[in-house]
Amino acid sequence: MSKEISQAVIRRMPRYYRYLGELLDEGVERISSNELSARMKVTASQIRQDLNNFGGFGQQGYGYNVQFLYEEIGKIMGLNEQHNIIIIGAGNLGQALANYVKFEKLGFVIVGLFDVNPELCGKSIRGNKIEMIDKLEEFVKTHKVDIATLTMPKEKADAVANQLVSLGVHAIWNFAHVDLEVLDENVVVENVHLSDSLMQLSYNMTKNKREKETLE
Amino acid sequence: MSKEISQAVIRRMPRYYRYLGELLDEGVERISSNELSARMKVTASQIRQDLNNFGGFGQQGYGYNVQFLYEEIGKIMGLNEQHNIIIIGAGNLGQALANYVKFEKLGFVIVGLFDVNPELCGKSIRGNKIEMIDKLEEFVKTHKVDIATLTMPKEKADAVANQLVSLGVHAIWNFAHVDLEVLDENVVVENVHLSDSLMQLSYNMTKNKREKETLE
Repeated sequence: MSKEISQAVIRRMPRYYRYLGELLDEGVERISSNELSARMKVTASQIRQDLNNFGGFGQQGYGYNVQFLYEEIGKIMGLNEQHNIIIIGAGNLGQALANYVKFEKLGFVIVGLFDVNPELCGKSIRGNKIEMIDKLEEFVKTHKVDIATLTMPKEKADAVANQLVSLGVHAIWNFAHVDLEVLDENVVVENVHLSDSLMQLSYNMTKNKREKETLE
Repeated sequence: MSKEISQAVIRRMPRYYRYLGELLDEGVERISSNELSARMKVTASQIRQDLNNFGGFGQQGYGYNVQFLYEEIGKIMGLNEQHNIIIIGAGNLGQALANYVKFEKLGFVIVGLFDVNPELCGKSIRGNKIEMIDKLEEFVKTHKVDIATLTMPKEKADAVANQLVSLGVHAIWNFAHVDLEVLDENVVVENVHLSDSLMQLSYNMTKNKREKETLE
């Protein structure tokens, strides 16, 4: 597989996967790039270009086999394997993520939740007991942990991230509002900065409003 | 203000705002683009280019006044005004967002939560009583609502989004795992697709793993 695939292409792949999943649910067996294009509101040429990064998958005059393409994109994104997730920070957001049934359908299985708040100790979220953070090291050493989710205050996020990396965790899903300083370059970090997203929304609505005021 | 500013630049602005806020907390009064560059791990030329979209703000030989730049970026993103938010879907994620104290500090104030589940009726989250969805229309007509957050199942997201738009809401923060079909082009939509983010992380870790296996 080429190493040259841009993150912009990668960011679009989950969307393809989602639309193909919907087509499957509707019982659609094959689809042309033009039909897929109309549905996804991207150009057919963009679709062909994106998928060509991974070898194409389409057949001239036939289009795409929906099931096959769905499975291939799943494989490309590693969804053919189960990924075990732990959540550090079992507050509202951590609990919300642990309750998200959808992740499990994609092969992302929550196997542990940790917090510092003794009031949460022993509380169960979908079968996972919340453990105190001092159990984290032992847990990671004795369980398969693929992804660590940080839903904790930013102040301690770096220390915990680096502890996890030293214990062999190589993927971090970071909700803490900070750019992690992870020292190991093999570690992949995916950030979800909710405040940033809200500010971007605010920018776009403010811009619309200002433009409207200028026109009036 | 120019209309030509790309969304890529806009996406970077919250990060500037965050770093400048941290500098303020540390009591730093001014900073050169080189120092800011080292801290943010982007090039000084990128910083100058980004900020020049809005008029610059820097002074040759002085650098940036941290407080001034922080406030100006805040204004650009509309943070000098309060934005009222309602949340449609008061499950785990909706409640987590309603509990997020940080948003309020940025001027995003949750003013209402709605759900269809009668068990949630009357429950309070930080002073906001969860209301049943049949109260939504009346609420939007009688309150200032700037942003509607959709933390509800995707099946009903389009219908609710279009109802809100017809009631005059022009910004939607969408967590439902669907591309909204909003008919009014003045409406701004910002998506947070958590599954997509997790799949992107999975792609990057799978790619790393495959490359490592190839090397071995």
